[in-house]
Amino acid sequence: METPAHESEALALNPAIVKKVLVDFIRDEGHNAGFKKGVLGLSGGIDSAVSAFLAAEALGAANLLAIMMPYRLSSQRSISDAELVAKHLGIPTEVIDITPMVDPFLKQHTITDRVRAGNVMARERMIILYDRSGRDQSLVIGTSNKTEILLGYGTLFGDTACALNPIGDLYKTQIFQLAEYLGVPREVREKAPSADLWEGQTDEGEFGFTYAEVDRLLYHLVDERRSEIELKGMGFEERFVQRVAGMIRRNQFKRRMPLIAKVSHRTMNVDFMYPRDWGV
Amino acid sequence: METPAHESEALALNPAIVKKVLVDFIRDEGHNAGFKKGVLGLSGGIDSAVSAFLAAEALGAANLLAIMMPYRLSSQRSISDAELVAKHLGIPTEVIDITPMVDPFLKQHTITDRVRAGNVMARERMIILYDRSGRDQSLVIGTSNKTEILLGYGTLFGDTACALNPIGDLYKTQIFQLAEYLGVPREVREKAPSADLWEGQTDEGEFGFTYAEVDRLLYHLVDERRSEIELKGMGFEERFVQRVAGMIRRNQFKRRMPLIAKVSHRTMNVDFMYPRDWGV
Repeated sequence: METPAHESEALALNPAIVKKVLVDFIRDEGHNAGFKKGVLGLSGGIDSAVSAFLAAEALGAANLLAIMMPYRLSSQRSISDAELVAKHLGIPTEVIDITPMVDPFLKQHTITDRVRAGNVMARERMIILYDRSGRDQSLVIGTSNKTEILLGYGTLFGDTACALNPIGDLYKTQIFQLAEYLGVPREVREKAPSADLWEGQTDEGEFGFTYAEVDRLLYHLVDERRSEIELKGMGFEERFVQRVAGMIRRNQFKRRMPLIAKVSHRTMNVDFMYPRDWGV
Repeated sequence: METPAHESEALALNPAIVKKVLVDFIRDEGHNAGFKKGVLGLSGGIDSAVSAFLAAEALGAANLLAIMMPYRLSSQRSISDAELVAKHLGIPTEVIDITPMVDPFLKQHTITDRVRAGNVMARERMIILYDRSGRDQSLVIGTSNKTEILLGYGTLFGDTACALNPIGDLYKTQIFQLAEYLGVPREVREKAPSADLWEGQTDEGEFGFTYAEVDRLLYHLVDERRSEIELKGMGFEERFVQRVAGMIRRNQFKRRMPLIAKVSHRTMNVDFMYPRDWGV
């Protein structure tokens, strides 16, 4: 199916405006919360690179700590690409190998399942980021994009854990547009997105569809609230629509606070919900 | 100051009704989410004991896995009290020593600060609970009470992480009432509450006030929305009120989802907020 002109425009960004909004967001929300510093995990991928570019501009390069947290099976390319981004921005870095924290658990419990092992790794990285956040009085800057948050392609209390996420409302295809505008190095922009959990893993290989395809569907399904009938009329296959809608629903728990049983007048997450910046 | 009769009644529970509401909550919400099993961390303290009693009744003892996760400095008493609860309920248990996961990080980074070390431990325990949750298709049952959630006396993405929390709307003094009604062993009910991070640690020793004092204040401040002037008229010291109100405000970030910068029509945690049980 040919994509009509207005279709391809749906996901088109005005990168200059978006950049300004997101840099202001980090600066304003950080200062409102009483923080001058940030910390983030730099994986070598495009999402954390874009977050780092935005946060370095908002907070100043010296106030942003980038942590590289390889596992023994992580690719060398991931580390060298992360170093490239850090060097480009002039931000301080720490390299912390997570293997000594991860392997005792995986080996003791003979965990070979890739998803279980990947969750342990993502959560060990969260522990490190939050330890540094507490040590340095810095905010953890998030690196999850809208596509993966909607599809649930991330670890609860792992890579999705953060204080502020500047890129969580941008689809992956929009991250690419913004990355080019920001000047993210070509090496980072031109490789296949991957969680780097095993050799040769790619996001699109795991999904069985491309980011271009799914972002176009997500835009019409979520942002434009199109019905299944409308989506069919636009040329989306019914099976694809149902599969993606199912992923969004099944992963809803990752986008919610824990559910608390209500027995009093005012219950957390139910009717005790002050705005975030409730005059500290 | 003498406590008038209606005052002491404010925090009084009808334990039979509360028990029924909370058991139904676990059963209904668990089944709505498509789960028959639960998993929880059993510390030897009263909160996790009460959660275990409620969850065992809701799901059936065989469907609740209790995990004991001592660190090398945890007291023997904690472990034996946890075992007492598990044996009383007849629930299956696992004992997983977190020392091999925790110590490589603490030693590598010479972390001696008790708060930082405690956060690492609480988060390593979360990793274990969520690994078992994924392995067994079971829901993580929360064990944080309303007092500690309001005061922020818990670790974000650590002990506060769960799918369902049956006791999160009960103050600590109410937990004691419910525990007695449920038949939680006397050994667990009659010791001083402690996070067991170092020898001799008690919650009340760290706070500098008792649960009885702070729960009474929290009830009037949060549930009854009393003003500072009213609270003063009720006999609460101004400094105590301001200290507790400050703890609630400063820890607000632990009760919220990460903040996402809004740039689209529909943004997670802003205007993409379906109810939890959005027809899966």
